[in-house]
Amino acid sequence: MSLKISVIGAGPGGYVAAIRAAQSGAEVTLVEKEALGGTCLNWGCIPSKVMVSAATAMRQIRHAALSGIHLETPPVLDMKALQKKQQTVIATQQKGIDALLRHNRVQLISGDARIEGKGLLSVRHQDGKKTSLSWDRLIIATGTVPAGLPKISTDGIQCLSSNDFLRMASLPPSALIIGAGVVGCEFASILSGLGAKVDLVEMADRILPLPDLDASASRLLAREFKKQKIGIHTSSSILDLEKNADGIRVNLKKNSPATENHEKMESIGAACLVLCVGRKPNTLNLGLDSLHLHPDARGYLPVNDAMETACPGVFAIGDVTGPERIMLAHVASAEAEVAVANAMGQRKTMGYTAIPSAVFTEPEVAFVGLSAERARERGFRVKTTSVLMRSLGKAHATGQLGGEAVFVTEEKSEKILGCHLVGAHATELLAEATLAISKNLTLRDMAGTIHAHPTFSEIFYEMACKGMGQGLHG
Amino acid sequence: MSLKISVIGAGPGGYVAAIRAAQSGAEVTLVEKEALGGTCLNWGCIPSKVMVSAATAMRQIRHAALSGIHLETPPVLDMKALQKKQQTVIATQQKGIDALLRHNRVQLISGDARIEGKGLLSVRHQDGKKTSLSWDRLIIATGTVPAGLPKISTDGIQCLSSNDFLRMASLPPSALIIGAGVVGCEFASILSGLGAKVDLVEMADRILPLPDLDASASRLLAREFKKQKIGIHTSSSILDLEKNADGIRVNLKKNSPATENHEKMESIGAACLVLCVGRKPNTLNLGLDSLHLHPDARGYLPVNDAMETACPGVFAIGDVTGPERIMLAHVASAEAEVAVANAMGQRKTMGYTAIPSAVFTEPEVAFVGLSAERARERGFRVKTTSVLMRSLGKAHATGQLGGEAVFVTEEKSEKILGCHLVGAHATELLAEATLAISKNLTLRDMAGTIHAHPTFSEIFYEMACKGMGQGLHG
Repeated sequence: MSLKISVIGAGPGGYVAAIRAAQSGAEVTLVEKEALGGTCLNWGCIPSKVMVSAATAMRQIRHAALSGIHLETPPVLDMKALQKKQQTVIATQQKGIDALLRHNRVQLISGDARIEGKGLLSVRHQDGKKTSLSWDRLIIATGTVPAGLPKISTDGIQCLSSNDFLRMASLPPSALIIGAGVVGCEFASILSGLGAKVDLVEMADRILPLPDLDASASRLLAREFKKQKIGIHTSSSILDLEKNADGIRVNLKKNSPATENHEKMESIGAACLVLCVGRKPNTLNLGLDSLHLHPDARGYLPVNDAMETACPGVFAIGDVTGPERIMLAHVASAEAEVAVANAMGQRKTMGYTAIPSAVFTEPEVAFVGLSAERARERGFRVKTTSVLMRSLGKAHATGQLGGEAVFVTEEKSEKILGCHLVGAHATELLAEATLAISKNLTLRDMAGTIHAHPTFSEIFYEMACKGMGQGLHG
Repeated sequence: MSLKISVIGAGPGGYVAAIRAAQSGAEVTLVEKEALGGTCLNWGCIPSKVMVSAATAMRQIRHAALSGIHLETPPVLDMKALQKKQQTVIATQQKGIDALLRHNRVQLISGDARIEGKGLLSVRHQDGKKTSLSWDRLIIATGTVPAGLPKISTDGIQCLSSNDFLRMASLPPSALIIGAGVVGCEFASILSGLGAKVDLVEMADRILPLPDLDASASRLLAREFKKQKIGIHTSSSILDLEKNADGIRVNLKKNSPATENHEKMESIGAACLVLCVGRKPNTLNLGLDSLHLHPDARGYLPVNDAMETACPGVFAIGDVTGPERIMLAHVASAEAEVAVANAMGQRKTMGYTAIPSAVFTEPEVAFVGLSAERARERGFRVKTTSVLMRSLGKAHATGQLGGEAVFVTEEKSEKILGCHLVGAHATELLAEATLAISKNLTLRDMAGTIHAHPTFSEIFYEMACKGMGQGLHG
């Protein structure tokens, strides 16, 4: 008899876990209360990239004159058409996932799952009916939802959540984005590209304040954002918010220690406000108590590196395991592979040394491995090498001059510990650096690999040479 | 006393050789009769990419409606402005090379070099004066010029060389391109993107008839070209050419064996014809005789894998060494590093197992390593795995659905022997595959590397899984 595996949540972690478990011979049920694809497909990566794509097209049209292309009339955005495209893309992908699940004989159950104790699960369907399921192994992949701020309640019109943003019916003339993490920065870039005036507010002292991202990348993106007239307000928090006929107005407080004594105030008005202040986990009402499982203070579910919870045979993967394990779709799918292997009796651990992160701003930001600071904290003697994208012929030929690449290496061995990219194609270029870190490669390996001319990937050769003291163009 | 090294030709091979030699402590002279940067910067990679960039912008504008962006009037190309941009880009890059040469204390001499015997070189300057130079080591990097066809003489108006094409003063309404190699296909893609009607004629039975490129990639590009209304005439050669008031008209003969008996004729008219039938080496009047060096029957200069000619201390690099060593700028620079190392008394050999090739068509084509056919010829037991780009979420989000990726692997070891990509970002994605082949990596290494979602680089994960019998989306 085959092992019964239940998976709760059909995001990229959950559905990959279900398919891999089925491919390994298990009898799999996948329970989802909303739509196939989770946050990634419905409220995250995919719909935002449809909008990024439109923003990119809009920018290209605005900059076409640089290539000798003239337009008599300015481009006009039809947000309804863009939203329709988004829905088409989502529907196509959902059909694809559904077909994959069927093909792999995963039983998909629509409803709200609740753990009823070891080996038991109940599912409440939309019509109020309930189904009971038994399981030998359980994989929890319930994900997160957008977090709010105590002072600000979203209304979908003047105050938007990130979900509201992705479904907006028209382009606001201006917007104030609260939170300059990955989502906030992507949204700022989208809005600015589409033609809105944008202000970006961030509590930390830099945009993209991610511990694994080199601060130089934040500075560079901020500089590029400013060129695009995006207002950047770091070290700032909201004192108060007023809704009015034109939209909203907020008072900001500078919270950097330097200005604490003579506190600066700033007042910003916009047609709407968008909250991008992080996520909160879906662990309430899951019935975790019945397994004596306890989420941490923030609600996340702790696991070990086999992705197993404190309850043997019960695994958790993806965003519900918390930000320390990096809340990204491709991490969730990688964790799915690990959880399934362990659920099926193999031994596999999840490694986090070569996790790529991609930020789809203009220019793009992408990074993998350690920042110089983190590498030093871990005891490495660190060398950093940076080369400007504008040192490449391709950057000039395409007019995509902005950006820089940074290698963080271990000084003596020249092993690549981290890579931080800002510039055109950064999110695709990242893959080579990820492979290099994943396979413990060095600057010499990178310099010994021929890179095609003229491409942006030549930046790796330039960095490797420079890092070895044999700089060419960089 | 430091070693005297003379380099003839300041293309990407020559100027890199000069810089590397100077960095190694040699006293270096670099002789160039035309412009810094050689074919690559003046007549190849770079100017063509300026035009590709404009063609891409034009396409993006035409397809903007798919992203909900409306334009009331069609875009208009100002070829003069585009040509001006091209010249600005070239000038900027030349200034950069010039600065690098100065910084590295390379003596740049403008004029026509002639070898006068072992250790001697004369340079005839534009004003007719002559300089004599002595050398301990000589590096020949004189490159190639466009080849012609016996029946067709170029006139720069109706019959263009590839050089003429890149400097055209206005966009022709239609063009017939002879030769569907890398240059011919790129030109076809440029013209079509900019709005011209294009016909592409090729003697071989496929476009991009490169022995190292998998035939499936040629088929795929042909299909995408046809969607763009580019006329493709393979297995065809020109019977005769007539110039008329409207441009040109040619009669084509089908030369495939299948149709030999009832030979098909085809007549095509166009505003102009562009010859993209390969290159011929600059080895005449170089004074090679004085070193008892003899080019091969086609005029190319044979070298061994240390890049040394039959005359000790005399090296040749780049296109002048012939098509078997792959005529690409990045190959020339890699050969430069090898030649300089050997010239300076080290021992280094040039490897050609992981040479990336990039074709900047729409969609892009990129490949590295062996085609399945070549791998079989070399005695490998081969497995090929292919995944369509449209299996990726990013392809749907950006609407870039065309294309496919192919891994050629050694069946038992799962070592990656070749990679063939058609699709968006293919020329940048290629870098990861090149690193993998360069470091002898396997499908398992690739599948064990996390790829960022949503990116086109996920195609490597999908291919690796599928190749190992564990396909996910592909």
